[in-house]
Amino acid sequence: MGYFGVVGGDRRQLYAARSLEKRGWNVLLAGWEQGEGTEGLHQVSLEEVGRQCENVLLPLPVTRDGLMLHAPFSQAPIPLGDGFARLLSRCRVFVGMAEKLQATSSLWQQIPLLDYAAREEMALGNAFLTAEGAIALAVEKTPGGLWGSRCLVTGFGRIGKALCLDLRGMGAQVACCARKPWDLTAIRALGCKALTYEEMDGPYSVIFNTVPAPVLGERALSRQSEGTVLLELASAPGGIDREAARRWNVPVIDAPSLPGKYSPKASGELIVEAVYHMLHEERRNLQ
Amino acid sequence: MGYFGVVGGDRRQLYAARSLEKRGWNVLLAGWEQGEGTEGLHQVSLEEVGRQCENVLLPLPVTRDGLMLHAPFSQAPIPLGDGFARLLSRCRVFVGMAEKLQATSSLWQQIPLLDYAAREEMALGNAFLTAEGAIALAVEKTPGGLWGSRCLVTGFGRIGKALCLDLRGMGAQVACCARKPWDLTAIRALGCKALTYEEMDGPYSVIFNTVPAPVLGERALSRQSEGTVLLELASAPGGIDREAARRWNVPVIDAPSLPGKYSPKASGELIVEAVYHMLHEERRNLQ
Amino acid sequence: MGYFGVVGGDRRQLYAARSLEKRGWNVLLAGWEQGEGTEGLHQVSLEEVGRQCENVLLPLPVTRDGLMLHAPFSQAPIPLGDGFARLLSRCRVFVGMAEKLQATSSLWQQIPLLDYAAREEMALGNAFLTAEGAIALAVEKTPGGLWGSRCLVTGFGRIGKALCLDLRGMGAQVACCARKPWDLTAIRALGCKALTYEEMDGPYSVIFNTVPAPVLGERALSRQSEGTVLLELASAPGGIDREAARRWNVPVIDAPSLPGKYSPKASGELIVEAVYHMLHEERRNLQ
Amino acid sequence: MGYFGVVGGDRRQLYAARSLEKRGWNVLLAGWEQGEGTEGLHQVSLEEVGRQCENVLLPLPVTRDGLMLHAPFSQAPIPLGDGFARLLSRCRVFVGMAEKLQATSSLWQQIPLLDYAAREEMALGNAFLTAEGAIALAVEKTPGGLWGSRCLVTGFGRIGKALCLDLRGMGAQVACCARKPWDLTAIRALGCKALTYEEMDGPYSVIFNTVPAPVLGERALSRQSEGTVLLELASAPGGIDREAARRWNVPVIDAPSLPGKYSPKASGELIVEAVYHMLHEERRNLQ
Repeated sequence: MGYFGVVGGDRRQLYAARSLEKRGWNVLLAGWEQGEGTEGLHQVSLEEVGRQCENVLLPLPVTRDGLMLHAPFSQAPIPLGDGFARLLSRCRVFVGMAEKLQATSSLWQQIPLLDYAAREEMALGNAFLTAEGAIALAVEKTPGGLWGSRCLVTGFGRIGKALCLDLRGMGAQVACCARKPWDLTAIRALGCKALTYEEMDGPYSVIFNTVPAPVLGERALSRQSEGTVLLELASAPGGIDREAARRWNVPVIDAPSLPGKYSPKASGELIVEAVYHMLHEERRNLQ
Repeated sequence: MGYFGVVGGDRRQLYAARSLEKRGWNVLLAGWEQGEGTEGLHQVSLEEVGRQCENVLLPLPVTRDGLMLHAPFSQAPIPLGDGFARLLSRCRVFVGMAEKLQATSSLWQQIPLLDYAAREEMALGNAFLTAEGAIALAVEKTPGGLWGSRCLVTGFGRIGKALCLDLRGMGAQVACCARKPWDLTAIRALGCKALTYEEMDGPYSVIFNTVPAPVLGERALSRQSEGTVLLELASAPGGIDREAARRWNVPVIDAPSLPGKYSPKASGELIVEAVYHMLHEERRNLQ
Repeated sequence: MGYFGVVGGDRRQLYAARSLEKRGWNVLLAGWEQGEGTEGLHQVSLEEVGRQCENVLLPLPVTRDGLMLHAPFSQAPIPLGDGFARLLSRCRVFVGMAEKLQATSSLWQQIPLLDYAAREEMALGNAFLTAEGAIALAVEKTPGGLWGSRCLVTGFGRIGKALCLDLRGMGAQVACCARKPWDLTAIRALGCKALTYEEMDGPYSVIFNTVPAPVLGERALSRQSEGTVLLELASAPGGIDREAARRWNVPVIDAPSLPGKYSPKASGELIVEAVYHMLHEERRNLQ
Repeated sequence: MGYFGVVGGDRRQLYAARSLEKRGWNVLLAGWEQGEGTEGLHQVSLEEVGRQCENVLLPLPVTRDGLMLHAPFSQAPIPLGDGFARLLSRCRVFVGMAEKLQATSSLWQQIPLLDYAAREEMALGNAFLTAEGAIALAVEKTPGGLWGSRCLVTGFGRIGKALCLDLRGMGAQVACCARKPWDLTAIRALGCKALTYEEMDGPYSVIFNTVPAPVLGERALSRQSEGTVLLELASAPGGIDREAARRWNVPVIDAPSLPGKYSPKASGELIVEAVYHMLHEERRNLQ
């Protein structure tokens, strides 16, 4: 099968590396000198990855600061830029958030870049992992139980859908707020209570926010009870009015990037699946 | 409604006290001097509880060592025995595991004792809370995800049933081992895979043991993969051969008394519900 | 494997015969001269069944009138009594509702009789088939849909449990009436609304009655809407006050013995499974 | 609220009329002279509908032959064309499949036409009604049961999704064939078995086809058992190779337009909901 380089990244990449190895690739790690659980994987230099590997996997996100590769377990920081690009110029590069990489060097225009983070199957699989993590947090961080309790999900995107399904599946009484008429229909079709944001009521035991826009403000929070807990699942700035939450004394639990935190293995396998889908499509297109 | 005494116990009793207060009782706490979250509740002496309260709630379990009341938040240990019994001799006493109390003084034969721990609705509600806690642990302690993964539940008692329902509801592929032919039928009726213990296969991502007898031994463990994780939910000695688990290098997570740990509020409300059911039945019997 | 006789009965017995054949038995049919779908099965006389077969399967129920075998597809009626018993005196006889057979001849006291209808796995499997049939009827006979609609189940026995699970699984808003406190807890644990019979409300789109005692009377029916439909699943006299239903103009659909009607094959396989369980237990007891 | 005309159509339109009346509209029926269940609704001439009604509801589909209005309960056929359009020229016209109406007269270009059949909430709600109808058919037309049985769904569009959810919810072992990688992920996330069309296996008890392209051919059918039943839910020509089905002696049940057949009331309410959404959006746009 040839050589697959895995450069930098967090535990998800490590599990991706293991999964690639299982599928028969010779995996070469770079930027993992200080990582645990790398036993049995070949650690080489970035140069060697560039020389030997037809395919290379870069992190998700590929960079946090726009300058260095996201490589928390690397001995030394790995600067992006022309030099880095030149090293991988003969590889097929799989990356999370390609645009961030392209911004670091014009050379990337000549290198085949495939963005796995842009794949729907990644987003969808991670949404279900996020829902699982959110449910685990709700169980651990709140003194109540889920079964028979009233839960509210704000938003019916991928994560909202997953939460409605899972919470209902665990015996909660689920309500979900959405804007689109067809989402309201789908929510009811799942046996949940459909609400527009104007209709949002209370009190609920747990409120799971998935909307990155202000949907949980004064009015909504004023209708909750002392026991209510808010879970913020949306990316910053989220959808919760922190001031109002404090005023109404509704605790907020921040729950960012749960898949990486609780399900790095499942996440890594989703990455590898996406990579394989992209390889197949490429092959198909070549034919 | 009169006075209700809550003597000793852990956070479940405190939530029970809050719930009783909400239902209109004057609640008197004893043995809670060092407990947090008692604001607004009257703390009195055990003597006063005995004097004032028609009804008294004792802990679950009422004692761990057979000598002292289970009262982790009490300033001083509360010895059981004739003295303790005499103080409560004019009360209706609700207790978890009555036989343990009766063993401490013959006087209890003259005092109306009602055991809420023996109630089916308590056992059943706690089984679903246990399943939620086990799922939360599985999400947090294992790098994989639940959806689409292969999970095995051993035993189809209350907790096994709850796990089959919840795991299936979260999109896992659930298999369950049971002995009784009708349990195997019920397992299939839930859309799960029914196995006798002889048919137990593998590998599974997570195995939830609910059987307090040796069901997960050499043979079963030899069929699991490196990734497999075992959750021990059964009371000691549990059902897992620890030696074999070590040999086959399958990690075991001990998860005892999850409701008290993750759902003290829900648990406390189950206690109060059971108490109410017993009060109603008593009233009915008097008529 | 030897010879297995199948004498009389409806389509369930025919499917049972097929299933026995698949499992390797030589099946001999008697009392099926006018039945369709018997191709390839040996039809013999009752005498020959008695001579050749170690095991014999009798219908469920074995008789309707207490005099003749329940054999709707037999050319001639098959009278029960000493003669019939004598013919099968050297067989192991599997029967549905043994007491009805025993009442026809004292000889049965000397013949090994095993009642498959008394097996819990039969009752449980048929309860889930009944729930499926009831749901099919609700879909076909009512102009509304199930998803998002309000459904009421009266009774939380085997059939009530199955209905709560299935209806919830199809996205209905399910309420269930029960008497026992622990049943109310279990109903809530399934994500359904738990009601005592006193709390029964309305209006509901469909009401599934599983209780063979008057639970749906004036008061309950007065709370329904014009659109409401009642399904009577309980054995006669059922739980619906027909007079009140007429007065309140709530249509009643009678739905007796649905498994035999809609799922004879599944039902027949449940019979064979029960037969096998009884054979195994007998063997175990002999050891 | 003013006057709402309901012209022609089948039972769905009649239920829509009832629903509009409940919401406070004065409903005028035309083309319903021979319809049952019109009691209490005003039947008027088409001319009067055009004169009096600000809003008019036309059937779904508005026409079958392109010449006459779809009005099975009308005394006389209602020809489409300039004359018909002129009569409704001062109304806001809600119609199913507007393009078919526009093809009958150029005058429609000047008349506000709103197509409720094109609304996502209609398609989605009907998909869940279709799934319910398909399940009812599977229960009634096949001798087996659903719980514990192996069911295959081909296609993961709206109807496929609804079937996966409902069948899983009823305890079936569900597999689903899809093409898109993210659909395969979603199928697994629902706890179902995901298959590409190449991986399609067997035997299954029931196969629900939702794909209007040849997906169930020789190869797929050759893997089924005698007991297998095919349900054709896709619009003509469907996805089943009838020749192959005959050869392999797999019965095919045609199940077209189930919502209109089994759930005219639910369907009619979906139409009214869509109409209301369109009215609101129009109002919003005017502001």
